[in-house]
Amino acid sequence: MKQLILLRHGQSLWNLEDRFTGWTDIDLSNKGRAEAVEAGRRLVAAGIMPDYCFTSYLRRAIHTLDIVLDNIDRCWLPVVKDWHLNERHYGALQGLNKTDTARRVGQEQVHIWRRSYDVAPPALTHDDPRFPGNDPAYKDLAADELPLTESLADTVRRVEICREELIVPALRHYGTVLIAAHGNSLRALAMKLLNLSPQEIVSVEIPTGSLWMFTLDDYLRVTANRYI
Amino acid sequence: MKQLILLRHGQSLWNLEDRFTGWTDIDLSNKGRAEAVEAGRRLVAAGIMPDYCFTSYLRRAIHTLDIVLDNIDRCWLPVVKDWHLNERHYGALQGLNKTDTARRVGQEQVHIWRRSYDVAPPALTHDDPRFPGNDPAYKDLAADELPLTESLADTVRRVEICREELIVPALRHYGTVLIAAHGNSLRALAMKLLNLSPQEIVSVEIPTGSLWMFTLDDYLRVTANRYI
Repeated sequence: MKQLILLRHGQSLWNLEDRFTGWTDIDLSNKGRAEAVEAGRRLVAAGIMPDYCFTSYLRRAIHTLDIVLDNIDRCWLPVVKDWHLNERHYGALQGLNKTDTARRVGQEQVHIWRRSYDVAPPALTHDDPRFPGNDPAYKDLAADELPLTESLADTVRRVEICREELIVPALRHYGTVLIAAHGNSLRALAMKLLNLSPQEIVSVEIPTGSLWMFTLDDYLRVTANRYI
Repeated sequence: MKQLILLRHGQSLWNLEDRFTGWTDIDLSNKGRAEAVEAGRRLVAAGIMPDYCFTSYLRRAIHTLDIVLDNIDRCWLPVVKDWHLNERHYGALQGLNKTDTARRVGQEQVHIWRRSYDVAPPALTHDDPRFPGNDPAYKDLAADELPLTESLADTVRRVEICREELIVPALRHYGTVLIAAHGNSLRALAMKLLNLSPQEIVSVEIPTGSLWMFTLDDYLRVTANRYI
């Protein structure tokens, strides 16, 4: 039996300000830090200790994991950071206030960008300071890996690379794997784990700071899942 | 040209209380956290950005590195944790106050334990809660890797395994490698890097929160070293 735990980062400062975040590297709010402490407590209470961890390149996920590891007394656990686990890239919407944007372009358009499976928000241009190619964190990525915007379908495709190449091998080797990441990158993983359709996955909401645990058999087929 | 930066963790709560720490997993003091913030500032001021990081299994070193990475805006850098970089194991002295111990066994004896190269403090027994074999962090270590006590010479021998197997390959691949670790594990590295004798290395003091940078040529021979 294996366990895979999806941990969404705690509330960030831009969750709090209701702004589109995407790959913008925004830190946790105080509430977000408290949510991470609480996630650690729930793991201890459930008696579930990870053996191996993954996170994204974004500090709200990295810090959430750091706080959890500190609170479960497992700072020494291996942590692999992979940009494929980043939040969905929100293109030219990144940094904008969600309510202001809805006022300008209409609530329905914002709903389509946020909740459709394969519609991407307006793209950045390559000279935009928000383009990941201008960030040292992504200097080793190939040109076709650097997003100007992403639909959820795009996010699913790149998260799948991490799942196949890193997460599945880790699950073969370790009993319990913890992944600290983002609403949409965790949706992408859940979609694959539970064989969900595009229509099903867009309605899945994973709360900030929550721990969604999947139990898998030795062939890595999901046999149960629950929030802990 | 390559750069290797040795970063000693900030002040810990037991540095502050003047207790023998060794492998005891004591956190940073507030001053220690401030020292880590300051180390990050010095890296930025010197324009030196690491590409790859190592740390020990102990949270005072891990947290120092986390704080530095946050302050140089490089949370996404790869970090490898290796128990070989832990502080020297202080055996049955771990947890004892240094002044009390000197009063009990004499200042000279404590000086020998702290400043000789190949004398180890009294050993733990296997049933001691302080024995690393009783800690889940070290459950994968072989019996002969689990220390009951260590001389500096013992520490040098096991740090050398990490240097040869992990640090040298990282230096071949990356330009600048940062190692956040402990007074004695960093001494062990400096001894090798600078070809120091046992007599020379025991008198080297690396202050908490300090950054000691080694410049190496392409054959990984040290050409210069300085504190930054």
